[in-house]
Amino acid sequence: MNSKNLIIPRKLSGFMELLPSKQIIFDNYLEKIKQVFLNNSFLPLDTPILEYSDVLLAKSGGEVDKEVYRFKKGDNDLCMRYDLTVPLARFVSMEKDNLIFPFKRFQIGKVFRGEKPQKGRFRELYQCDADIVGFDDLPIPADAECIKLIIDIFNAINIQDILIQISNRNILFGYCEDLGYSDIISEILIILDKVGKIGKENAILSLEDLSVKHEDALKLINLTEKKGNFENILNEIKNISNNETFKLGVAQLEELNTYLNAYKLDKTKYILDLSIIRGHNYYTGTVFETIMISHPEFGAICAGGRYDNLTGYFSQQKMPGVGISVGITRLFDLLDKNNLLPPIKPSLNKIEIIPLGETIKDCLILEAYLKANNILCQTNYSNKSFKSKMKDANKSQVPYIIIVGENEVASELYPLKNMTTGEQIILSKEDIVKKINNN
Amino acid sequence: MNSKNLIIPRKLSGFMELLPSKQIIFDNYLEKIKQVFLNNSFLPLDTPILEYSDVLLAKSGGEVDKEVYRFKKGDNDLCMRYDLTVPLARFVSMEKDNLIFPFKRFQIGKVFRGEKPQKGRFRELYQCDADIVGFDDLPIPADAECIKLIIDIFNAINIQDILIQISNRNILFGYCEDLGYSDIISEILIILDKVGKIGKENAILSLEDLSVKHEDALKLINLTEKKGNFENILNEIKNISNNETFKLGVAQLEELNTYLNAYKLDKTKYILDLSIIRGHNYYTGTVFETIMISHPEFGAICAGGRYDNLTGYFSQQKMPGVGISVGITRLFDLLDKNNLLPPIKPSLNKIEIIPLGETIKDCLILEAYLKANNILCQTNYSNKSFKSKMKDANKSQVPYIIIVGENEVASELYPLKNMTTGEQIILSKEDIVKKINNN
Repeated sequence: MNSKNLIIPRKLSGFMELLPSKQIIFDNYLEKIKQVFLNNSFLPLDTPILEYSDVLLAKSGGEVDKEVYRFKKGDNDLCMRYDLTVPLARFVSMEKDNLIFPFKRFQIGKVFRGEKPQKGRFRELYQCDADIVGFDDLPIPADAECIKLIIDIFNAINIQDILIQISNRNILFGYCEDLGYSDIISEILIILDKVGKIGKENAILSLEDLSVKHEDALKLINLTEKKGNFENILNEIKNISNNETFKLGVAQLEELNTYLNAYKLDKTKYILDLSIIRGHNYYTGTVFETIMISHPEFGAICAGGRYDNLTGYFSQQKMPGVGISVGITRLFDLLDKNNLLPPIKPSLNKIEIIPLGETIKDCLILEAYLKANNILCQTNYSNKSFKSKMKDANKSQVPYIIIVGENEVASELYPLKNMTTGEQIILSKEDIVKKINNN
Repeated sequence: MNSKNLIIPRKLSGFMELLPSKQIIFDNYLEKIKQVFLNNSFLPLDTPILEYSDVLLAKSGGEVDKEVYRFKKGDNDLCMRYDLTVPLARFVSMEKDNLIFPFKRFQIGKVFRGEKPQKGRFRELYQCDADIVGFDDLPIPADAECIKLIIDIFNAINIQDILIQISNRNILFGYCEDLGYSDIISEILIILDKVGKIGKENAILSLEDLSVKHEDALKLINLTEKKGNFENILNEIKNISNNETFKLGVAQLEELNTYLNAYKLDKTKYILDLSIIRGHNYYTGTVFETIMISHPEFGAICAGGRYDNLTGYFSQQKMPGVGISVGITRLFDLLDKNNLLPPIKPSLNKIEIIPLGETIKDCLILEAYLKANNILCQTNYSNKSFKSKMKDANKSQVPYIIIVGENEVASELYPLKNMTTGEQIILSKEDIVKKINNN
């Protein structure tokens, strides 16, 4: 092909693509999270990446959202999914007669957001979601299951310094009602959610702009500053309001705490924190965010909560749910940039077999034997020079090499060379297996 | 929400979406195939689902292919990937300085084809691909690795009655040259590839339409009918032509056979079959298709071959490759429709814990203990009636249940009921663990 006709190979920005040495670690995270979901009796689901636009955008009344990849194909108006929650809602609405409720499902998959690429933002990202969906109602133990799941996940991927900050939106809903602001609750919550970013004083000014009295603004902010263990904080606040919604929030948190205790979860890993609000309007009860204590600047590395009506756009059947989501692409990227990933290895092989002379066939015989004995290995059968092959073995950081020349073929004894120490021992293939598998 | 505003929940046709009970089996296939790739030292790669259209359609000179999902977003002309090979070519072209060659990568992921849905065709489908890419050249042991991979994969997913039909396109290329048809080789191969479908007589007529002589048409068809073990067939045909390309094909097949023997692969699972041509023009040497002997109507359940120049559209650096692809979505669908899937279980749980009275907290304590001892279990904490919970346990086919009432909480002894035999024994939680884990 003429070089003038070459297409410059390039990848879209905002799409993570790892070299295999890092992909191994990423896949390992996914695998461990999947195993946690399965061990907690969540069932797998794999919905399509493409959906009808009116279905996926039901919430926004089918309005085009700039962040969504939407296009026409033939007569169909299609969208790439931007989360895993709407597809879940669609699925349980369609399949409710074939499911046992509470329905516990997980899904690990890519979602797509066509937003402008910025630092740390991805247009294609993996989400690891687990949700529990009830039929008519869903008791509070489901919320406790979600908290357990988060603790299990970060244990599994060896991120130990986490803190799950838990709240319940009914507390603030009720308190706002109590103070006489029923009609501007959403607006108040949006401001309270931003106190950390904009500062207390600006938050007060913003609340006053909404016609919240100065003293009420102080009360609200004061309430969101409460955090600590469940018993202490609940005792502190339980009598500040007699509003029914407020009392419901307190009761739900008390019940949740009972189940968290029953699960004997590590109490250093979760607190009640009334500053947690979650932007999304669909959360109606428990809400939570997880941070890394050593890296609060990462923000929420896992979040979720309870929504009373998952399927409201699709069905008159009420199906409340509670769920968690780990944005693993973003988290992986943050860990990587902060050198917090486990050590990277360019190869998983234990042994590289290097032919010297015309011994490729014999190398493959040895390779097949070692593989049959569960030793990861490969033969470097390329046409490169012997020197280049040694270089490649070094580059791949393989722990052992075996050079197979005519003598080795004749004697069936092989020099197993430790690439770290340089030590070399002559072994039969049976003894190689013993040595490697006992290491 | 008013029912008038409800959106009818529906899924696009041609997109497979399984109930969790089947998804478990599908995931299990993917997991086993992935493990085979890893055990054979293939490294993971996960390229984006979206690519620049000119990159993805480089082959066709950027022409719009009806089968491709293509759209604009802002200034970008985008395509959803329709295979995993072009993204691999793009990746190795971009990253060649960061890879060790031969580069062995696998990728398991969804690809998208916007074609009209037909029976057994999917618009979103998983492919499990493994390829070996060389730098400048790539010796024949790579082809043998691919055949080994296929045998390992179908062993792993317990499909034993496979036959890998192997050929080498240089045989027919050379023979056509020899007969004087150098300028219409592609056209001839297209017809020879269809003999099975259109029948021998029609194939001869079609070849004659291309101005192939009747006797040559017979010779060509006669050659493609050769199949059997490598030694026999190669002996039969090796002297029928002195053409260099033909001789190259024979030599490559002989060398391949040497390595297949070195790997000690099960000889009932592969044959040399000169009827295998593969439609794609980019194959240049070894080609193979895998069929299920008991279900030849499934067609090729795994196929692949060697291409001399993977990256020709992106780079002047020659990078030959050889690879395999399993269309697992289609295969799963065929197995399902023919009742060839392993038994389906609606739940993975070993035990369902059912509270009787106000014992949910105590059930969760028991659940946490059992889970900590690696027993998959869950508490049915729903607000359903006790009778409904028993029904759900039956429906989920869980092997054991434990009903926890106040007596059980007080005594810390629990009735473990075998749901198949109806037998019930009273055990401490420690003894439950022993009994379940010893089963």
